[in-house]
Amino acid sequence: MEIIQLARAAKAAGIRLAAIPSKQKDLALAQIRDALRDASSRIEAANRDDIKKAQADGLAKPLLKRLTFDAAKVVEVCQGIQDLIHLPDPVGKTLYAMELDDGLELYKVSCPIGVIGVVFESRPDALVQISTLCLKSGNAVLLKGGSEAQKTNQVLAEVIAQASYRAGIPEGWIQLLQTREDVGQILQMDRFIDLIIPRGSNQFVRFIMDHTRIPVMGHAEGICHVYVHQAADPEKAIRIIVDSKCQYVAVCNAAEKLLVDQAVASSLLPRIKAELDSKGVEIRGCQKTCQIIGCRPATDQDWSAEYLDYIIAVKVVDGIEQAIDHINTFGSHHTDAIVTEDQAAAARFLQMVDSADVFWNCSTRFSDGYRYGLGAEVGISTGKIHARGPVGLEGLVIYKWKLIGKGHTVAPYCGPDPRPFRHRALDKDCPI
Amino acid sequence: MEIIQLARAAKAAGIRLAAIPSKQKDLALAQIRDALRDASSRIEAANRDDIKKAQADGLAKPLLKRLTFDAAKVVEVCQGIQDLIHLPDPVGKTLYAMELDDGLELYKVSCPIGVIGVVFESRPDALVQISTLCLKSGNAVLLKGGSEAQKTNQVLAEVIAQASYRAGIPEGWIQLLQTREDVGQILQMDRFIDLIIPRGSNQFVRFIMDHTRIPVMGHAEGICHVYVHQAADPEKAIRIIVDSKCQYVAVCNAAEKLLVDQAVASSLLPRIKAELDSKGVEIRGCQKTCQIIGCRPATDQDWSAEYLDYIIAVKVVDGIEQAIDHINTFGSHHTDAIVTEDQAAAARFLQMVDSADVFWNCSTRFSDGYRYGLGAEVGISTGKIHARGPVGLEGLVIYKWKLIGKGHTVAPYCGPDPRPFRHRALDKDCPI
Repeated sequence: MEIIQLARAAKAAGIRLAAIPSKQKDLALAQIRDALRDASSRIEAANRDDIKKAQADGLAKPLLKRLTFDAAKVVEVCQGIQDLIHLPDPVGKTLYAMELDDGLELYKVSCPIGVIGVVFESRPDALVQISTLCLKSGNAVLLKGGSEAQKTNQVLAEVIAQASYRAGIPEGWIQLLQTREDVGQILQMDRFIDLIIPRGSNQFVRFIMDHTRIPVMGHAEGICHVYVHQAADPEKAIRIIVDSKCQYVAVCNAAEKLLVDQAVASSLLPRIKAELDSKGVEIRGCQKTCQIIGCRPATDQDWSAEYLDYIIAVKVVDGIEQAIDHINTFGSHHTDAIVTEDQAAAARFLQMVDSADVFWNCSTRFSDGYRYGLGAEVGISTGKIHARGPVGLEGLVIYKWKLIGKGHTVAPYCGPDPRPFRHRALDKDCPI
Repeated sequence: MEIIQLARAAKAAGIRLAAIPSKQKDLALAQIRDALRDASSRIEAANRDDIKKAQADGLAKPLLKRLTFDAAKVVEVCQGIQDLIHLPDPVGKTLYAMELDDGLELYKVSCPIGVIGVVFESRPDALVQISTLCLKSGNAVLLKGGSEAQKTNQVLAEVIAQASYRAGIPEGWIQLLQTREDVGQILQMDRFIDLIIPRGSNQFVRFIMDHTRIPVMGHAEGICHVYVHQAADPEKAIRIIVDSKCQYVAVCNAAEKLLVDQAVASSLLPRIKAELDSKGVEIRGCQKTCQIIGCRPATDQDWSAEYLDYIIAVKVVDGIEQAIDHINTFGSHHTDAIVTEDQAAAARFLQMVDSADVFWNCSTRFSDGYRYGLGAEVGISTGKIHARGPVGLEGLVIYKWKLIGKGHTVAPYCGPDPRPFRHRALDKDCPI
């Protein structure tokens, strides 16, 4: 089939999928979970083929690790589906209800977005995660995986599709595209695809954003800051810095920068350095930092670098306003934290820092859908439209306006002596 | 000043504007309203100059009409500002509150988007409307108006800026760009502009969408349908068809297509034709329609044409499923209505038609922010991300996540024996 036919099929299936009741979607998810479990050895065999080929092609070790889909991974994705089943259905919620006039009622009701295009690099677990999230939220999905995971992706998509069809989910709601040319075509299909979610490196996400007219939900990078205010509790500051930087360095919500108020720099920086030294973190400091603790000088590039490694850039600032300006200028609007015992300073920081996640006295590492209690995470968005920060299922729905009348026309409400609207809020759900 | 400096200034002002309290924003709106009233003769004089030049340049009559900004228009925009003052502030609302664990509280709080880029064609009243909407919602705004309204726009922007500064609104929040090259530059400035709102013709909106990486909120066109189901009340059907088509033909929520169930076509079409004839509406029919009422045959292009005129294309369908398919295939996902006394049919139509506004037994012309009770209207969005259908002030805000801890780190919640999260919903507003 041509890719445009697959997209058309997905669009048609998406329309029908939007009407499938919650119970049936959850039943389908349970069947997918069981089918993946039953197909475990088939999935592992396909994955071994992919890995063998990737090794022969000389794929880098971290990529090989991400490509791996073994028995433990099957258990993990099945647990994820189990958790998803227990989340409430985001579709069909009445968000606004208003009586416009006698017998004329308006309802704003949540509904699926339609067709989600997912373009992902090596991780085949992303296929399972995002397609089940789409199913739960009533969206059709076009998946384009990396060529290195071709066989694994093929088996996973087939198992998911077949199990869902047995549970009565409309055929065609999930489509796997495999050739390299497919990416370019996906990015052109704004008639059929409503939203693109890229999963992969920063360059990859940026490439997608630069080459499509379709809205993209993704995050560019995580240049997260911890700012130690002059009224910070030193123990909390050190604990938060160490956790934000070191608890897991390879993720977007790890701190890459530390800002320290001038008033406390000479007392605190030596203690911070001792802690970070013991964890093997390299410090790159501004001039003042270097004077106080003697470290490698930071370059201009350091302030906007995402290391994803045991490195941190440290700057002494003359107060909260400089800290806010610095973060808004050099940060990536992801997650930034202030450490202070001064509530007014915290309020100002949380107000003025233009980031998706602004924290007071806690680690930047909390910025995560699971930790936030959102359940499964679609991704983390650094955009400012639709959804921001950790995005749960509600990021995959929009709404439609349902207006119910009894033959009402607009004419009486217009002209020189117009009938007024009532605009009375209703406390009920949409009846149809 | 270079355009990039203006954009940078708008970004900085936007950050500060986000923190301005509701009362001060409303005070500034009141001062803008008064200042516009006081400057009425200056505005009219500038507008006369623009119109004189436009006439000399041979601008078409409908465009000249839209360009006109006379004393009546001043009164109208001032009334709009007055209404806006009375709307609730969309900023600072706690949308979600959750205790993650002892002393660790998460809040999702609405906030402005940041900097809105508005590109509009001839209407200078759009400048007043959109800039005051931006102020109310705490957003900075970069305005690029049409060259034909240059002098009017200049005076309006200056009056608004000066009045707002007197009320303590941060300088630079409103920027007017006047040269033709500015459009291209605006579309490139994704570092500074968070959302683009185009106001103008379909081609214009499409051009904008095709030439920027910045999210665009706009509507393509309004190809709205009225579908007369077999269980329709004939009186309601005729009333709704006439109102949807004729009440105001030049707008996007006017009906352009009529679908009639085969079962009622021969009884209803002659009556519909008589009504539409009396209003001077030209009918272009499918083959069956032509057989029943004898009219000009519709071409393939007619099903996806937006006439904005006294023309309607009519098709006989064999039932609700064909009607839904036809609308989803040829419509523009704007507003579509079913006329029926059968609740199950209405429910199916409202569920399956993939449009922003789906109506049962009422005119498509109700699709409008003011009629919906949203207050001032930012626009009507046919996109499916962020905001859909008539968009009120809430379309100009997003949210940030505020997490408040007491020195919390992620480490205890990870590893082999992790501390569980509590995830208990809180019934309170964010304290800072």
